Amino acid sequence: MKIPVEVLKNAAKEILVGLGETEENACKISEILVRADMRGVSTHGTYLLKVISMRVEGGQLKVPTTTKIISDKDATVIIDGMDGIGMVAGHLALKIAIEKAKKYGIGMALICNTNNVGCLGCYTQYAAERGMIAIMSCNAAPAMAPWGAAEKFLGTNPIAISIPAKKVNFTADMATSVVARGKIREALRKGINIPENWALDADGKPTTDPKKALEGTLMPIGGPKGSALAMAVDIISGVLSGSGFGNQLKSFHILEGPTRVGASCIMIDVAHFVDLESFKELMSNYFNTVKALKKAEGVEEILIPGEIEYRKEQKSIEEGIEIDDKLALSINELLQKVGSDLRLISD
Amino acid sequence: MKIPVEVLKNAAKEILVGLGETEENACKISEILVRADMRGVSTHGTYLLKVISMRVEGGQLKVPTTTKIISDKDATVIIDGMDGIGMVAGHLALKIAIEKAKKYGIGMALICNTNNVGCLGCYTQYAAERGMIAIMSCNAAPAMAPWGAAEKFLGTNPIAISIPAKKVNFTADMATSVVARGKIREALRKGINIPENWALDADGKPTTDPKKALEGTLMPIGGPKGSALAMAVDIISGVLSGSGFGNQLKSFHILEGPTRVGASCIMIDVAHFVDLESFKELMSNYFNTVKALKKAEGVEEILIPGEIEYRKEQKSIEEGIEIDDKLALSINELLQKVGSDLRLISD
Repeated sequence: MKIPVEVLKNAAKEILVGLGETEENACKISEILVRADMRGVSTHGTYLLKVISMRVEGGQLKVPTTTKIISDKDATVIIDGMDGIGMVAGHLALKIAIEKAKKYGIGMALICNTNNVGCLGCYTQYAAERGMIAIMSCNAAPAMAPWGAAEKFLGTNPIAISIPAKKVNFTADMATSVVARGKIREALRKGINIPENWALDADGKPTTDPKKALEGTLMPIGGPKGSALAMAVDIISGVLSGSGFGNQLKSFHILEGPTRVGASCIMIDVAHFVDLESFKELMSNYFNTVKALKKAEGVEEILIPGEIEYRKEQKSIEEGIEIDDKLALSINELLQKVGSDLRLISD
Repeated sequence: MKIPVEVLKNAAKEILVGLGETEENACKISEILVRADMRGVSTHGTYLLKVISMRVEGGQLKVPTTTKIISDKDATVIIDGMDGIGMVAGHLALKIAIEKAKKYGIGMALICNTNNVGCLGCYTQYAAERGMIAIMSCNAAPAMAPWGAAEKFLGTNPIAISIPAKKVNFTADMATSVVARGKIREALRKGINIPENWALDADGKPTTDPKKALEGTLMPIGGPKGSALAMAVDIISGVLSGSGFGNQLKSFHILEGPTRVGASCIMIDVAHFVDLESFKELMSNYFNTVKALKKAEGVEEILIPGEIEYRKEQKSIEEGIEIDDKLALSINELLQKVGSDLRLISD
């Protein structure tokens, strides 16, 4: 079904305020969650409200979320997420890193002791809209074995990169595993099998069963290369920020204590290097050149990273956000639970 | 055969000075080339002297190399490599980026209009030895098709990341393709086949023939993910720096005009965030934890990125650098050509 953008945002805000968030925080969080849904990244959208609610009830998410600046030196900052909702710290890190980049040309914000910050590509996309080349990453609960190991230690530790262009920005948002755990959880929810190269079971054998995959480990992209990238992300987001890292991190989806997620946000101000408008023009030409290359067999259109998400976002604005019945029902239940009269669909 | 470090460095310096480089530049260049050989990265070592010599003779490498600072604003700098030997601009970018990072916490140097800068991991390793988390990347001549395309556009655009630890630093240095073109050129030189998943031929079909692979395209790691990473590297190193990008770039190994390679160098000063010695201690513990994980079947030891290279470097210092006969002969020929009396091996 299709839900108008503002309706979904209001529903998310009411739920968050009902769970104990401030109005201001609820606005920031719902912006990021709903934008993920608009862009078709359903694993990081309002689906997370159910998990947030579970954690708040379980006393494992401190609301209203507070943040604390631990260190603010020159072009760098460390923000303590105070075990609150990740999008609040994420939003602050993004804002400060952009300010730092505008002042110094490049800026870096680290976050420690936070939780699932949501769709990284939504943050970097926001920054690209403000003239930034944005690189963001975070660590996550163990899901992947370092190359050579047969034991979970690294998270799927995603990296998102956005680059401003004239209309459609470049936005790549990728787990360093072949797929994100969210995709496997989604397969489990939908009751479908997963491809053979996504994951190993607990004994280290390839599996197509999403349940067994969630008990085993995910495969990194490019073998030792993806493993190294995931480790670098864990170290920069986790160790350098003073947050949790490696197998210290807890899952956001299970009540086993604070997740202690760390994140890192590097912003590069294009205007410090070249004229922003000329750069955007160059980038659009670049993408047009790529799109006009000879296509591989069976390919109808060459897509720039972020192009599918851009189109989905435009469609969401025009026609409403496509969300599945199960999610709509879960949001209705949450609305009812917090005592709101709002409903996404009539009961 | 094994060649003492200083002997190989002196040979490289004599060749470079003989080709027209200044003493100072020759020192910097040979440091980087020889360190690659010491670390076992033979595709980026003194093997390149032959190519440098060919380009100088062909008038496509301006020696003595000069550099020009195009822009120096706050934590950022752009260096013009003036179509000279890449390691001179690379060395300068590294030095300035480290200074910027020490001052601002994070610094960024871009290089435009340079040539093959050599082994990125050698630069980032140098920076890690000075307390930096270093991220370096560069673009290269078209070798890879963007995801969905069947035509060369992207280079193998490598990314190197180093992170300081107590003894063995983390150093990942990876092409965004499954393998670097250098590995295929090496297979061609050795007359051996390549694995099936490395490359496509000119018609877009997998090939084990290194010659056909060099005429075709390389495969990116993780499909669309590696393609997106390579594109981001091309844009940051090439477009943002004002250098060549995409299919404008020329090969370093063929005389077809200035390569117009661009590079980017991001330095993060660990001490701006946490105490450096405590961080190094934490990192060494981190790596020990990883090394003690349950091993995958058939794995004797879990290796940290850069650990093999570290061991080779130590061995090179103690026992001399292992180089093959063909390379030793080629260096001897170059020494003879520039009129030096020095020889790596007796004729």
